Amino acid sequence: MRVWRMARSAAATKRRILDSAYELFYRKGYSRVGVDEIAAFAAVTKRSLYYHFRSKDDLLAAVLELQAELAFARIRRQSLAARPDEILEVLFSELARWAGRPGFVGAGFTRIVMELADLPGHPAHAVARRHKAAVEAWYAELFRNAGAAAPDTLAREVALLVEGAVTMILISRDRGYAEAALRAAKTLVRRGR
Amino acid sequence: MRVWRMARSAAATKRRILDSAYELFYRKGYSRVGVDEIAAFAAVTKRSLYYHFRSKDDLLAAVLELQAELAFARIRRQSLAARPDEILEVLFSELARWAGRPGFVGAGFTRIVMELADLPGHPAHAVARRHKAAVEAWYAELFRNAGAAAPDTLAREVALLVEGAVTMILISRDRGYAEAALRAAKTLVRRGR
Repeated sequence: MRVWRMARSAAATKRRILDSAYELFYRKGYSRVGVDEIAAFAAVTKRSLYYHFRSKDDLLAAVLELQAELAFARIRRQSLAARPDEILEVLFSELARWAGRPGFVGAGFTRIVMELADLPGHPAHAVARRHKAAVEAWYAELFRNAGAAAPDTLAREVALLVEGAVTMILISRDRGYAEAALRAAKTLVRRGR
Repeated sequence: MRVWRMARSAAATKRRILDSAYELFYRKGYSRVGVDEIAAFAAVTKRSLYYHFRSKDDLLAAVLELQAELAFARIRRQSLAARPDEILEVLFSELARWAGRPGFVGAGFTRIVMELADLPGHPAHAVARRHKAAVEAWYAELFRNAGAAAPDTLAREVALLVEGAVTMILISRDRGYAEAALRAAKTLVRRGR
């Protein structure tokens, strides 16, 4: 019983470190966040942090793995629309709503890859690559199930437009880019007809 | 004569600091580059650096202003194609060529905005916003001159696809995204017909 409680508490501590690191990395990026800050935010000692994670890089990799899981579970719950047009409407209106939240800072995986662009061997890249590929494969599945022509091509185009829209909204602070992306995607859906 | 020489030399020093800072910021991002490193790279004293720029933030703003000018001049020289399809081919094949260079790290303005996403008041955002708007306006001008239908809409869509392609190539290291973006853009051009 006592051992189980300790194990549970160690898992809870680890998760609290992961959540704290995520919140800080997501808000300020990787380079501007120190291990001291993460430990303080999670209310653990640095020693405890290093017990669970060997280095800040290891911690980032673990944060991204967990976030990829959570993000993908969230995404899969999202759209169950029947027609390709409806799928696109749900997708881009969700995007616009997200981008309209106060403190919107864009896509976490994209931002970490941009920040660490000169370090292509960093584990962050592999996790981001897998995540984006999984999302694109999920788009393709949705479009296939909805009977769209060329679902893989369409999925890739939607991935491009989603990525472009998030970036352009972050830069311009103009959510009109989500509507422009939706219109473009709808045109691309109709191409096959 | 002596005063003129000194002025010339001060301008040359300032430019050398700007070029050095650009190279380091572009490669490693803003947060991981220190003022000491920039001064050493430019072979000037820190005192000389602070004579020309009040702070690292000021230096970044000046770097971005200069780069926006240079990038825009480079872009305007680029494509003089006559038909909308040809414009797109030049644009996206240039993109693919750029993305294929060793050490490709993506778009500098986008990366700096992503890195400083939680600081929307930072001057970097305003320069990036102006730059992206100028590029989009230039696309619109090219498409208008080439007789494309709805040149402003098309320009916005191309901006989305370019931004998406650069990001997706950076993440996936798969230049197929440039071709996918080109195909999508060509479909969008034909919509108006």
